Amino acid sequence: MIETPYLLFLGDAADPLAAKVAQGIKDWRPEFCVGQLRLDGCQADMGLDDLTIEEAIAKGAKTMVIGVANRGGYISDSWREVIKQAIESGMDVASGLHNLLRDDIDLVEAASQNGRTLHDVRIPSVKYPIANGVKRTGKRMLAVGTDCSVGKMYTALCMEKVMRERGMKASFRATGQTGILITGDGVPLDAVIADFMAGAVEYLTPDNDDDHWDLIEGQGSLYHASYSGVTLALVHGGAPDALVLCHEPTRKHMRGLPDHQQPSLEELRDTALILARVVNPDVKVVGVAINTQHLSDDEAATLCKETEERMGLPTVDPYRHGAERLVDALESI
Amino acid sequence: MIETPYLLFLGDAADPLAAKVAQGIKDWRPEFCVGQLRLDGCQADMGLDDLTIEEAIAKGAKTMVIGVANRGGYISDSWREVIKQAIESGMDVASGLHNLLRDDIDLVEAASQNGRTLHDVRIPSVKYPIANGVKRTGKRMLAVGTDCSVGKMYTALCMEKVMRERGMKASFRATGQTGILITGDGVPLDAVIADFMAGAVEYLTPDNDDDHWDLIEGQGSLYHASYSGVTLALVHGGAPDALVLCHEPTRKHMRGLPDHQQPSLEELRDTALILARVVNPDVKVVGVAINTQHLSDDEAATLCKETEERMGLPTVDPYRHGAERLVDALESI
Repeated sequence: MIETPYLLFLGDAADPLAAKVAQGIKDWRPEFCVGQLRLDGCQADMGLDDLTIEEAIAKGAKTMVIGVANRGGYISDSWREVIKQAIESGMDVASGLHNLLRDDIDLVEAASQNGRTLHDVRIPSVKYPIANGVKRTGKRMLAVGTDCSVGKMYTALCMEKVMRERGMKASFRATGQTGILITGDGVPLDAVIADFMAGAVEYLTPDNDDDHWDLIEGQGSLYHASYSGVTLALVHGGAPDALVLCHEPTRKHMRGLPDHQQPSLEELRDTALILARVVNPDVKVVGVAINTQHLSDDEAATLCKETEERMGLPTVDPYRHGAERLVDALESI
Repeated sequence: MIETPYLLFLGDAADPLAAKVAQGIKDWRPEFCVGQLRLDGCQADMGLDDLTIEEAIAKGAKTMVIGVANRGGYISDSWREVIKQAIESGMDVASGLHNLLRDDIDLVEAASQNGRTLHDVRIPSVKYPIANGVKRTGKRMLAVGTDCSVGKMYTALCMEKVMRERGMKASFRATGQTGILITGDGVPLDAVIADFMAGAVEYLTPDNDDDHWDLIEGQGSLYHASYSGVTLALVHGGAPDALVLCHEPTRKHMRGLPDHQQPSLEELRDTALILARVVNPDVKVVGVAINTQHLSDDEAATLCKETEERMGLPTVDPYRHGAERLVDALESI
């Protein structure tokens, strides 16, 4: 568990996209953000107060989050200086970079001397159990996609936002690095040892109140040859009561696999249901989330309407149109 | 790759079952075995010559394989003495124990001083790639089960034996510890990091002659909540041309999951085909292998006949009846 609130470190981000982790935290957990720290040349701006480390500490910041990625995911000398200063001033540091904080001797030494924690969210910090398949209390929603990177995390976060506005009990459960940094907790599922994947998801979504919903962040796709095993572990470890189908309509082929085509939403629905029923016979597909970022307003509205008629399921772009109708569907089961 | 031939170390095996790794090597690769080494009180016997380490070396043994497990999977003092002696006499050592050879300071030091290799087959020795989903040359068979531990490894090994007798090109491809020790090579799939599972299977089954069959050892079950992700990675990384359905008819529930029932062979067939077609549209289910070890001869024959009529697929217990008819089915596609 990463201590909040955060100072968001944007470094010398080459463009706004390089700071997408910071953007995600700012978008979904603004209450966690006391400010941002930018180096010379930084091309990203979260619209937060620019703070020095001392100012951030004075405002209560407990953790500096590396909200930026550079090519190669390494820790540059100019970053290292600031990270060391944050540690020495009393903050923990959290990072999803490929190169781990814990492999950097200077940072490890500084953390040790100052009693601070380095969080490398790219790798697991817990020894997860093997899944036991026992039914847990509470309810669970899982977003499954026709492909990787089609908006599963955003769908779950949009739904959580609406549910909290309605006073429903809802927890986004992060299964990837960005999601973990956004919420401060979760399981980096793609880095878990094969035998423990489903057990890690059970661990992530324990018994809860009967009217509480876990909104589990999806990973990969049952149809993606590289990552489908991770997805099936999510289905069987998560034992969802509700599935939301996620789709990106402009993909020419499966992400990273030029010879592979996306399945139809009907195929995804049928296959996901067969597999999810293994652990939860009552599971239902409740809606469709379409990522319309590459479509005009008219195109997006038309596609959602056509898909809704075809599938007989509420269909929206939850980021563009809001997730209200998906949450309505959850409330009705 | 573990160097052959082997000296099989049976230790002080409490009963024959404790030496099932040694039994597997003796059954399936007798040509790899120069002899066995037993300690006082050993209750297992492979029917091989009892050799000292010096005699084994004289007969050409390159590797001593720990063919026995004790409760807890640890290395006892009496074992350590013999293992050290093997290393100092010039043998490598291979083990599938939970406690790793490489974590034993004495053994690491002995291996280092004598230039020998310690093979811990429980963990990967290769940095596997992420799967690329590209179609490979050659043919592949994968055994899929209604449950874990229903005879998938034995089915593949029985088929390999028949195929080699017929002069066909066939390679058993091990994906578990016992299979790796039997063949000297393979991928310990349950210990691979999630993101690289399917890539590890692609690595294990590379391009080959058009008339060559890889017989891929199955793991887990698409219907087993704890391990299904590993199984789907095998399906998508293996991209099989042929599937054999494996079943154990006396199971009361899924192994280790008292609340979960096995699927029918029809359900397994349909689900496995849907998922396997994602990477190989021409995949076929060619036969059924039933593990009849708990049935009488008559019961076994009746069940196979009934299943064959119901499924319309050649159905045998490959260990009891031979795998000829399953291989016939492979030859016909």
